[in-house]
Amino acid sequence: MPAAASSKTEQRLVEQPHKKALLRRMNRIGGQVQGITRMIAEDRYCVDLLVQISAVRSALNQVGLQIVEDHTRGCVTRAIQAGEEQEAIDELMSVLGKFAK
Amino acid sequence: MPAAASSKTEQRLVEQPHKKALLRRMNRIGGQVQGITRMIAEDRYCVDLLVQISAVRSALNQVGLQIVEDHTRGCVTRAIQAGEEQEAIDELMSVLGKFAK
Amino acid sequence: MPAAASSKTEQRLVEQPHKKALLRRMNRIGGQVQGITRMIAEDRYCVDLLVQISAVRSALNQVGLQIVEDHTRGCVTRAIQAGEEQEAIDELMSVLGKFAK
Amino acid sequence: MPAAASSKTEQRLVEQPHKKALLRRMNRIGGQVQGITRMIAEDRYCVDLLVQISAVRSALNQVGLQIVEDHTRGCVTRAIQAGEEQEAIDELMSVLGKFAK
Repeated sequence: MPAAASSKTEQRLVEQPHKKALLRRMNRIGGQVQGITRMIAEDRYCVDLLVQISAVRSALNQVGLQIVEDHTRGCVTRAIQAGEEQEAIDELMSVLGKFAK
Repeated sequence: MPAAASSKTEQRLVEQPHKKALLRRMNRIGGQVQGITRMIAEDRYCVDLLVQISAVRSALNQVGLQIVEDHTRGCVTRAIQAGEEQEAIDELMSVLGKFAK
Repeated sequence: MPAAASSKTEQRLVEQPHKKALLRRMNRIGGQVQGITRMIAEDRYCVDLLVQISAVRSALNQVGLQIVEDHTRGCVTRAIQAGEEQEAIDELMSVLGKFAK
Repeated sequence: MPAAASSKTEQRLVEQPHKKALLRRMNRIGGQVQGITRMIAEDRYCVDLLVQISAVRSALNQVGLQIVEDHTRGCVTRAIQAGEEQEAIDELMSVLGKFAK
């Protein structure tokens, strides 16, 4: 990050430990989304659309869980070791709350 | 669909009543997925990734609900009027079961 | 329902086609909820609590899906046959929206 | 726990930091479940049942999130401080996986 980036919050950078696998999965999800778009364009049957949407949702959940896991093993663990668990766990919980609806 | 398409199951074609809006939403979702992929490539902070993933999940749910609604108003309603509700509702429920986990 | 019940909306009564099975399942869910309450009172390990909570959630989802199915086969089908699909499907979708988050 | 309890796995006991509040919420959930059971017995309208089921599901999610939070602040934090994060985080993730479907 250039020094100029720190307007308000300085951007924290974290290289995902499963970066390559995550990129591969996100690319596949991107392909699935294009596939659904094409199916809608081609007037494919509603139920077939829904089956594909449900598959993308599962794939996204898997990616999300992987990131939560790596985040907990990485950032949260380091924060706890540094005695800064309060903020790290607040942040984790606010994200989990979004996923649990 | 080419005439040759009817290999196994004949494909049912249904033009979505909100086709244009759905295509727009799917294109936006495709853009969000690319955005997340880029964020991972750029080592963006885990929690920011998760917030975006959760947003895509909500957007997909919205598209799914719209299709379920239009499917119910369209295909299911016509099936019921034709006295073929058994099969139509079986199919609907199997799809809803996937969404409810 | 006593005649006096119709203050604002008259109560619609519907005997669930799987009433006995639903009552059995709800009684089992009630027992599971009491079990969790007791586990908390006895300071049982957090992860064991969460496993049980997740089981109750699944059981409730199953009951919910059964009711949605029977509602669709019953009330919604009759409404469609009577040409009153608009309101019935609006109502169904608003309920499904709650379940899909 | 009586000494005889340690048949296979020794039971870990953890007093929930929000024990009283959790017990109160679980009792309320138990009451809601009984309410739904009664509604089914009284042939109350399907959609009213579904609205209540959805409310119980939300209430259970809230209890689950509270326990996850307290578990992370307590057990997981202590495990990390003791250098035993591997097992603690494996266990946490397997529970979160259940909740994320």
